[in-house]
Amino acid sequence: MNGAEILVNTLLSGGIDVCFANPGTSEMHFVAALDRYPRMRCVLGLFEGVVTGAADGYYRMAGKPASTLLHLGPGLANGLSALHNAMKASSGIVNVVGDHASWHLQYDAPLTSDVDGIARPVSHWLKRSHAPDDVGRHAAEAIEAANGRPGAIATLILPGDAAWNEAGTPLRFDPATSAAPHRQPLAPRADAIDAAARALLSGQPAALFLGGAALTAKAMEIVGRIVAKTGARPFSQTFAARVERGAGRVAAERLPYPVDHAVEVLKPYRHIVTVQASQPVGFFAYPGKPSVLSHPEAEIHPLCGLQEDVVAALEALAEAVGAAGVQPVRAMRAEAALPTGALNPLAIAQALAALMPEDAVVVDEAITGGFSSYPLTATAAPHDWLQNMGGSIGFAPPVATGAALGAPGRPVICLTGDGSAMYSLQALWTQARESLHVVTLVFSNRTYQILKMEFAGVGAGEPGPSALAMMNLDRPDLNWVKMGEGMGVPSTRVTTAEELCTALSRALSAEGPSLIEVML
Amino acid sequence: MNGAEILVNTLLSGGIDVCFANPGTSEMHFVAALDRYPRMRCVLGLFEGVVTGAADGYYRMAGKPASTLLHLGPGLANGLSALHNAMKASSGIVNVVGDHASWHLQYDAPLTSDVDGIARPVSHWLKRSHAPDDVGRHAAEAIEAANGRPGAIATLILPGDAAWNEAGTPLRFDPATSAAPHRQPLAPRADAIDAAARALLSGQPAALFLGGAALTAKAMEIVGRIVAKTGARPFSQTFAARVERGAGRVAAERLPYPVDHAVEVLKPYRHIVTVQASQPVGFFAYPGKPSVLSHPEAEIHPLCGLQEDVVAALEALAEAVGAAGVQPVRAMRAEAALPTGALNPLAIAQALAALMPEDAVVVDEAITGGFSSYPLTATAAPHDWLQNMGGSIGFAPPVATGAALGAPGRPVICLTGDGSAMYSLQALWTQARESLHVVTLVFSNRTYQILKMEFAGVGAGEPGPSALAMMNLDRPDLNWVKMGEGMGVPSTRVTTAEELCTALSRALSAEGPSLIEVML
Repeated sequence: MNGAEILVNTLLSGGIDVCFANPGTSEMHFVAALDRYPRMRCVLGLFEGVVTGAADGYYRMAGKPASTLLHLGPGLANGLSALHNAMKASSGIVNVVGDHASWHLQYDAPLTSDVDGIARPVSHWLKRSHAPDDVGRHAAEAIEAANGRPGAIATLILPGDAAWNEAGTPLRFDPATSAAPHRQPLAPRADAIDAAARALLSGQPAALFLGGAALTAKAMEIVGRIVAKTGARPFSQTFAARVERGAGRVAAERLPYPVDHAVEVLKPYRHIVTVQASQPVGFFAYPGKPSVLSHPEAEIHPLCGLQEDVVAALEALAEAVGAAGVQPVRAMRAEAALPTGALNPLAIAQALAALMPEDAVVVDEAITGGFSSYPLTATAAPHDWLQNMGGSIGFAPPVATGAALGAPGRPVICLTGDGSAMYSLQALWTQARESLHVVTLVFSNRTYQILKMEFAGVGAGEPGPSALAMMNLDRPDLNWVKMGEGMGVPSTRVTTAEELCTALSRALSAEGPSLIEVML
Repeated sequence: MNGAEILVNTLLSGGIDVCFANPGTSEMHFVAALDRYPRMRCVLGLFEGVVTGAADGYYRMAGKPASTLLHLGPGLANGLSALHNAMKASSGIVNVVGDHASWHLQYDAPLTSDVDGIARPVSHWLKRSHAPDDVGRHAAEAIEAANGRPGAIATLILPGDAAWNEAGTPLRFDPATSAAPHRQPLAPRADAIDAAARALLSGQPAALFLGGAALTAKAMEIVGRIVAKTGARPFSQTFAARVERGAGRVAAERLPYPVDHAVEVLKPYRHIVTVQASQPVGFFAYPGKPSVLSHPEAEIHPLCGLQEDVVAALEALAEAVGAAGVQPVRAMRAEAALPTGALNPLAIAQALAALMPEDAVVVDEAITGGFSSYPLTATAAPHDWLQNMGGSIGFAPPVATGAALGAPGRPVICLTGDGSAMYSLQALWTQARESLHVVTLVFSNRTYQILKMEFAGVGAGEPGPSALAMMNLDRPDLNWVKMGEGMGVPSTRVTTAEELCTALSRALSAEGPSLIEVML
């Protein structure tokens, strides 16, 4: 067995059977090994940001890591910003990066680069296999790291000679015993539960600030009991990795994005119990505005972190505040009327609320075009909602691609702005190749609308023509129907709410991918 | 003056009046400053790889750096692989990256990342301005570094508060004296010239291996005299930053890409004089094949490096070998016949050779589709030829964009494969917005053809269906006419040599960008 075969074999033994790939010469032995291990589903992306973003989306829905296969430092570099997003969302990924054969590095060939240096800022775990005998052990460690709580980016650098040389000894790493078990979460800390309970029972206004697995339906049921009993107000992070929500489930209110608005909303609360979330802070800094969004006198009480068992922690808290038998308030299914007339964020939100089928997965990078969609779908059929926790733009199309592979049989709705989608439009081709049921809504307002708001927000004054040229996407207008069709995705343009409803219904009941350009 | 204004002001004073940008919230004060400094031409890219690749192309043609403007760590990450290519080509760039305000970093907001760590592997010079009073001095240093010999990537990290706060003292850095002069090249080393001369006059077979400014027309005239006198064989690097070539100029033979072929070609030579180039090495490593391409007994004689005056070095060498009054052999203009019939790499090369106008700039990432184009255009009208020295794919469309801005009035011909162009197709939009005369030829063979060759080359055996799925770009086919038109670039598809000639003639005589999908 050569190193590449050992790697594929170990990945499969460790439960990793999906590989998102954009290979090059130095990865050809890994590619060759795929023919001998047909159980590994290898999915090609035509740009590495698609590869790493898809691995993020896959983890969020499948609950286990995929691997990647990237070509040297530059291939890794192209996937770096999606790894940043994955890292902030605590998605586990076994990130495999090829490198030149060890003896070739000294010659500084064109593609020679500091692969370790490029990987370090986005890797929790990072190793380089110097020989085929290293590969099995390193791969097992990477699988274990990626499967940790929280999930981790585990980058394994595989030089060509470590991939193509035969291992000197019979496979040292025994695949039969290698299947790295998901690391068990830690038990919650009693002192944290006591402190949170005292805060919620203090009589002073209190809020919960929820992230991570606190936003699963199961955990939110317990949150609902705590809230019903204590009157605490439940907020979710402004951007969360995955929220199980909709009719029949307990809802948390999304903390607003604008700093002033968030500060106003949090102002009354003297206690904030954080659950798998850090304290609420601003997305950006602004002159003269605070970074910390809670009231200056508010006390922060961390109930549990990402490495702890959130259900156990919430159950213990519910018990401590006397909410054991309390009934939570669950969202009711609201039969939403279909919107008519002009297209705007409200009409889009109404269309989604009315038409989203049960079990839909929404990947949300709509930014200004989608501000209304989240609140208005709180009463839609139960669904999952995935957001960008790292802020690197171009998040949605790759994550939607991976989410579809991680949640077979569930339709994925990808909400994206025209500005955002341009960063990662290549994902559409992978959706077409893999026949994934992803419905992409591109909100086409021909501007980085958010930047116009931010320009004012940072006190930069009134934009003149030169500044506006950096924020408008007109001259020329983008045509998403052509771009989608150019990558094999059936695409249509809608200019009224009625057209949107028709197109969305059709796309959701069809098979395979489709794109709807929503003209705003 | 705030820090952002000081930066723009200093850039202009230092001769930098083009900024390729994809800004975000933390860069809004730089954007606002553009309105007050209309002399700065700010060019928007809809993906950061376009921004940094364009800065590379601009430097190669303008001979001076542009600046970039990138949004935090993830924006930088998206531009990283094009910076890798620029670094390998010794292109100077003042690479400006925003960051959160200093006091915001401690809160680990979504976009917080290790910006310095991400920048380090692709930066020769790297500083962070902690306050507006730092900015002028840092910017001047960055300009000087980028203008060095060789050109350098100078990354300046600009936190939001350093951009928006007023400088505490009147501009410390005086723009009147700041215009960083191009650093003068070093004088050539006499011992290196003596050694090279002895090698060329030894009677043993000798070759020249040329890179950098040795491939300018002026330097090649001297190379031509040396070659005519000594019988040494002149090779250029397989990939060079910029070659001035065509009819009336002295040509160097391109060292072949395949290792076996290059080894065979270099086998006779016992002396290799390198001129602004390292010794010839393989692009990739292959099992059982050498990294060093020259004969094991060949001696390498470095004549001069990138920091030295190549014209002075070559003149001294010509003098030393007695070639002072010798006439070089120059390429004759061959009137090429227009190709007819089926489209293949030869027909493409013939069409280019016949139709390329004088002063064209060719940006070449055609890979397998363009292997014949370089040799067959040696006798075309004089032109410049730009290649990818870093090997990171997606090189051509962004570099063509910047080259057009760096060489106003000259048509740019961008040769790219369908696989390659997918990495950076967003560049087409910038070409349309800026009305750049870039003619993009996409060689559409629906495969990573080079990988099929490399698969065999690394001894990975015969690809089966899983391996082939990673190398074929079919299912679905890409449609470049639709994608080009979707970004506002007039696009057409050609299926015969005649159609190619018609479309190429039309595109070259038109204004603005166009795309020709060449079906192979």
